[in-house]
Amino acid sequence: MKVIENGVCAAIGFKAGSIHCGIRKNQTKDDLALIVSDTICQTAAVYTKNKVKAAPILVTKKHLINGMSQAIIVNSGNANACNPKEIENAELEAQCAADYLNMDVENVLVASTGVIGQVLPIEKIQDKVSDINLSSENNSNAAKAIMTTDTKEKTVAVEFKMGSVTCHMGGICKGSGMIHPNMGTMLAFITTDCKVEQNVLQSCLLDNTNKTFNRVSVDGDTSTNDMCIVMANGMAQNEVFEKEVFDQVLHFVMEELAKKIAADGEGAGKLMTVTVNGVDALENAQTLAMSVCSSSLVKAAMFGADANWGRVICALGYSGVEFDPELVDISFKSNDEILCCESGKGLDFDEEKAKSILLQEEIEIICDMHSGNESCTCWGCDLTYDYVKINGDYRT
Amino acid sequence: MKVIENGVCAAIGFKAGSIHCGIRKNQTKDDLALIVSDTICQTAAVYTKNKVKAAPILVTKKHLINGMSQAIIVNSGNANACNPKEIENAELEAQCAADYLNMDVENVLVASTGVIGQVLPIEKIQDKVSDINLSSENNSNAAKAIMTTDTKEKTVAVEFKMGSVTCHMGGICKGSGMIHPNMGTMLAFITTDCKVEQNVLQSCLLDNTNKTFNRVSVDGDTSTNDMCIVMANGMAQNEVFEKEVFDQVLHFVMEELAKKIAADGEGAGKLMTVTVNGVDALENAQTLAMSVCSSSLVKAAMFGADANWGRVICALGYSGVEFDPELVDISFKSNDEILCCESGKGLDFDEEKAKSILLQEEIEIICDMHSGNESCTCWGCDLTYDYVKINGDYRT
Repeated sequence: MKVIENGVCAAIGFKAGSIHCGIRKNQTKDDLALIVSDTICQTAAVYTKNKVKAAPILVTKKHLINGMSQAIIVNSGNANACNPKEIENAELEAQCAADYLNMDVENVLVASTGVIGQVLPIEKIQDKVSDINLSSENNSNAAKAIMTTDTKEKTVAVEFKMGSVTCHMGGICKGSGMIHPNMGTMLAFITTDCKVEQNVLQSCLLDNTNKTFNRVSVDGDTSTNDMCIVMANGMAQNEVFEKEVFDQVLHFVMEELAKKIAADGEGAGKLMTVTVNGVDALENAQTLAMSVCSSSLVKAAMFGADANWGRVICALGYSGVEFDPELVDISFKSNDEILCCESGKGLDFDEEKAKSILLQEEIEIICDMHSGNESCTCWGCDLTYDYVKINGDYRT
Repeated sequence: MKVIENGVCAAIGFKAGSIHCGIRKNQTKDDLALIVSDTICQTAAVYTKNKVKAAPILVTKKHLINGMSQAIIVNSGNANACNPKEIENAELEAQCAADYLNMDVENVLVASTGVIGQVLPIEKIQDKVSDINLSSENNSNAAKAIMTTDTKEKTVAVEFKMGSVTCHMGGICKGSGMIHPNMGTMLAFITTDCKVEQNVLQSCLLDNTNKTFNRVSVDGDTSTNDMCIVMANGMAQNEVFEKEVFDQVLHFVMEELAKKIAADGEGAGKLMTVTVNGVDALENAQTLAMSVCSSSLVKAAMFGADANWGRVICALGYSGVEFDPELVDISFKSNDEILCCESGKGLDFDEEKAKSILLQEEIEIICDMHSGNESCTCWGCDLTYDYVKINGDYRT
């Protein structure tokens, strides 16, 4: 497996494109994107578990009943959720893409991200969709067009062998606020030219969602609009298919996207990786790691480069998982590593060294529970002034 | 029932006092307090549900096996948690109070709040405890001495009739960060001269903890040290006892303390009350209200006085409770009230009016699920720059 460029356009037969259609006020930012395959794709998807599901989720689900699609239309700037015309407009959004691309509307999926509760200005989308220039060079434009408060475009692609055939897989995503297990305000679109059956694709996607996106926390909020879609057009024409290889590649692509989302959480100054080792069951390891990763107090301490391991053990303690506090070790790691708590008791550690470790851009909190062989790693970010600033007046 | 002054000293036979013993560096802030009854008290307590329990919790639990106590010693500045001498020092802390007060050590309870993981400087407590001046006028000193990042002392007292006898009940507490259901970094001490059996006291305390302190969220973190203790010395000599009356009074005292904790959450600019009406079951109403109350995105929006009801419906949606989004109404209320979402859809409301409502110091978010007759009210605060600042370098 080799990391390459070009995100969703890396796989054979995929094109993308974007435009500013006018949903956003800022004319320099595109707000409408298309991802299109030359041929029909086996398609898998996972959606938000929020009880309040936005219309694009419902329409995409309906269009995916047969497990096939050929294009995705995505807008930013408006979530098309909780407004009187949401279903109608989500269907019209798919329809105008279908008209432009000259395909059946059932093969077009829809995604939206942005403010909840305002009617989508569908006529702006209808007016401009056919001006989108589709090209296999436009990955970056599409990646930018789906951003909301993200500060960086998020894209990854790899090349891998399936038997003797070279295949490709790539993805783009957007994250930022409302990021928490069961999909935060997160849209992720992954394309591959590998030939794979829909049921295999769906099961690999589900499994890897649990191991990647569901291990990211920015602020504990889960939005109404999240989805991750994988489209596989089979154009690499691989005759053999090894599930293990495919699964590994998908895992890599999704983990890279997940980490990019964590590192670019709203206002985030640093990527915080939390690893919990020595747990009796994987599920418990994940609960413990997510509890630390989601703690506002831990996140604020990381912002302040304060090796406040007391907040870490405290977050382990209220996770709901049973453990013996007297077995717990806690370290902080980046360019160097320091053990601050051993067997549940604080050590007299070098505060200056701890500070310099925590001042790095990527830091890791490592907990060893000494109670088993399971481990779990989760990703989050620090809690900063900017998080509060961004979310104090997002709508205005 | 009438609100009076004097907190834990309002009830007959209770005295309090405090001193600066040197745990804190700031010499103008007391860090050691005593609350003492003239006679032995029926005593009830509830503790943190964190798996990591600090030594003062363990020692207090042990001393309370018989349900009796006569004094509480409390220090701030050091949580006496997760350090090699915690149990030994918690016992020594109780012992030095017992020596000074000339009572059995089993009748002395211990509480600590502050930084986790550092050895308690017990000799400072031992040196100074006997200099504490005990008086029924010293409630405010004790209330101040237990503060950490609290900005206001928290105290309440009432006078009430039990049969023909006038009884009193009062309390002090500390809150600030790490406040969440199942007791945050919260210490609360309540005293009464009403005669009440220990098992009744314990059941009223448990019940009201669920209805008050467990409905407060500042940041979702639950600490290792929290406890609420109620001491009843019976000195009012009431011969009749009406449980309903007692329960109401205790509820009032605990709710007032809970609201003071929410309003003075770390960095809080305003008290945020969340009421969810029209739910099928009380437990579901509480889950829904706490989900809104705990959402960082809702809290940040309230800081910005932004009527972002989309985040409210979103937090209802990921609470885990089943409901029909198309029935949900959401309003914001303070000096005035505005309906922003009706039947799950956004209304075209007056943004200026909404802003002026949310600029008040006490605001309410009201959700009606139109699915039943149960309601629940929870309390929290906005998420501000100051929360991040305070928690970015708490230890330093």
